[in-house]
Amino acid sequence: MSNPARAAAEILARVRRRHPLVHHLANEVVANDTANVTLHLGAMPVMAVAAEEAAEMADHADALVLNLGMPRPARLEAMLRAGRRANGRGIPVILDPVGVGATTFRTEIAHRFLEEVEIAVIRGNEGEIGVLAGTGGEVRGVDGVSGGADPTASATTLALRASVVVASTGQRDIVTDGRAVLVVDNGHPLMRSIVGTGCMATTAVACFAAVEKDLLLASAAALAAFGLAGERAAVGAAGPGSFKVALFDALAGLESGDLAAGARLVRTEVA
Amino acid sequence: MSNPARAAAEILARVRRRHPLVHHLANEVVANDTANVTLHLGAMPVMAVAAEEAAEMADHADALVLNLGMPRPARLEAMLRAGRRANGRGIPVILDPVGVGATTFRTEIAHRFLEEVEIAVIRGNEGEIGVLAGTGGEVRGVDGVSGGADPTASATTLALRASVVVASTGQRDIVTDGRAVLVVDNGHPLMRSIVGTGCMATTAVACFAAVEKDLLLASAAALAAFGLAGERAAVGAAGPGSFKVALFDALAGLESGDLAAGARLVRTEVA
Amino acid sequence: MSNPARAAAEILARVRRRHPLVHHLANEVVANDTANVTLHLGAMPVMAVAAEEAAEMADHADALVLNLGMPRPARLEAMLRAGRRANGRGIPVILDPVGVGATTFRTEIAHRFLEEVEIAVIRGNEGEIGVLAGTGGEVRGVDGVSGGADPTASATTLALRASVVVASTGQRDIVTDGRAVLVVDNGHPLMRSIVGTGCMATTAVACFAAVEKDLLLASAAALAAFGLAGERAAVGAAGPGSFKVALFDALAGLESGDLAAGARLVRTEVA
Repeated sequence: MSNPARAAAEILARVRRRHPLVHHLANEVVANDTANVTLHLGAMPVMAVAAEEAAEMADHADALVLNLGMPRPARLEAMLRAGRRANGRGIPVILDPVGVGATTFRTEIAHRFLEEVEIAVIRGNEGEIGVLAGTGGEVRGVDGVSGGADPTASATTLALRASVVVASTGQRDIVTDGRAVLVVDNGHPLMRSIVGTGCMATTAVACFAAVEKDLLLASAAALAAFGLAGERAAVGAAGPGSFKVALFDALAGLESGDLAAGARLVRTEVA
Repeated sequence: MSNPARAAAEILARVRRRHPLVHHLANEVVANDTANVTLHLGAMPVMAVAAEEAAEMADHADALVLNLGMPRPARLEAMLRAGRRANGRGIPVILDPVGVGATTFRTEIAHRFLEEVEIAVIRGNEGEIGVLAGTGGEVRGVDGVSGGADPTASATTLALRASVVVASTGQRDIVTDGRAVLVVDNGHPLMRSIVGTGCMATTAVACFAAVEKDLLLASAAALAAFGLAGERAAVGAAGPGSFKVALFDALAGLESGDLAAGARLVRTEVA
Repeated sequence: MSNPARAAAEILARVRRRHPLVHHLANEVVANDTANVTLHLGAMPVMAVAAEEAAEMADHADALVLNLGMPRPARLEAMLRAGRRANGRGIPVILDPVGVGATTFRTEIAHRFLEEVEIAVIRGNEGEIGVLAGTGGEVRGVDGVSGGADPTASATTLALRASVVVASTGQRDIVTDGRAVLVVDNGHPLMRSIVGTGCMATTAVACFAAVEKDLLLASAAALAAFGLAGERAAVGAAGPGSFKVALFDALAGLESGDLAAGARLVRTEVA
């Protein structure tokens, strides 16, 4: 991985060539958006939320997203079944701990998932990662207000404790397995002006992780691609509505060459 | 029906004049989009998904959509009640067997609906129609990969077996009651670049079927209208995001005269 | 409140400065749109729909929206718990009685909410307000066909009977506490061409009510702001799709000075 941007571009090309099936147990607020992001990146979305079929659908999938937004008991049962099946098949499970820390219910659910399902990647904002890492993150509603400690320290702590790759998104994105860190410096402030960009970033991670076994690289590459699309969409946007439309256009139009040229990825080792 | 395009135009005019109420038991991923499509075509959407009120809401409706995307036990009970009530009132029930064949649960549900509710029209992609026809369709996630047999043969087989009109959408759309076939040659490849166009097509069929008793003609007319809006939306679209926005504009702006001039409908008899 | 437009502008400035947290128990058809409206106005959305956490999430909120679209037993329990908690904390509860009158189930639910939760503001269309006021409103699907009596009379009757502020939206919006009336004359016909503008208006009311104790003024100010954004979005819109995109842009771009200059608010006393 002498050149992470070039490696990221290669993974995007693979997503577009293989059309992996990405199974989402998503929240309804962003379900349409995350399904479209999946499609625009070249993958195929499916959302089978009933406990009766969630695991069987995972049999056909190349990656699984467990999104904790709008959690409900019935949905959680489906998530656990799908997660276990995904583990049995060896496909990566991506956890988005939406709003963890905001209520006791969400916090308990997030911990239960970490215990009962082998999670490959956790993608959250700095506050959520801080809460899970126990480093003092603060979450208000579903927005991370503060990660408490330094975001890199929180992400590294959580990665080591849970044996996962952590993708912490914020001003800069921090992706780490607890040993190496990839800092992603793509993105645009308008991405925070619309609902669901966090969930969409998680979806991008799942699409990339579906075709690349190096999950540290796959996660960082996905965030670079998503952020680069955001940068392009911001050009000429008149506000959040037109930005969102342009973001979908940019995701669909993003070519490998664009990512090789535009991904800003820096790798460092944890001291 | 000497001129199907002109007949299609007349049905569109009737939808815009009468504002039929179309009750959807929809899936959440596309609920907002299908509700807007209903409105843009001139009809009125309502989505009452609780078993406690689904049937009573059907009392006021002019057509009912049963969409199997994101099926769950509680939702299915509401669908069955609404379906039976619709049958009792003689309004058309349109079934969208989203993802049938992908899991045992979905396949069983689809067959149960065909047994317990009198379905007027089934709108599915070639893979879904092939699965229901037993002609070897293949479905991956919620996308039909292949209809197995020739799409017309699958559609005809299913139409005769289930005594329904089948609207099979794909490269060309095939609409048949098992005896006559209407081939619809409208549409644009960008329609496959966004999530939910299949479900939106089903909604269009329901809007047209709400005001026209010839369900073969109504279904084909609806697909022609939806496809023609897609063609117009594709002009100038910079990607799937702007295409989707333009699709809604085009649906709302579609006039009867446009459909009379632009519908590409060819009628043949099954040998 | 010698100048209601200036007072409205001041409330908008406060929303943008304080970022109140607005908890929605929303319906899925419009959940994404209402969450974005919340964000674009400067507030923060959260949607915790499980009975297990709905009340705890209300502990952090500055206003609560109870939206009756797509009601289901589990959702209603969550709404009641959140409503009671909100009452205990003294934050305003905004009720949107979507489709009340269309089915017995919805009508009973609406009355139950009015009995068991202290509602601060009811935002509905003329038909819904007429049904709740008992003045003969008519609702077809989820659209108010007619308010029966004069909209102002219906709104006043309901406001006095239920001891709430009533915000009745239609050709002109009527906001009243039963004694004073604020008529809002902003808005554009294109707002009726897309799904969910009623629910979005309710969200706007909640954002404003979260930071202003005079709920009559807050509600009217919110409807003026939302309507003014609609007027601006209509300029150059090619149809409902592009209008909706422009509406989000306009909401995010609306400045206090715009509202001070453009809000059309007229105050009268009930005879």
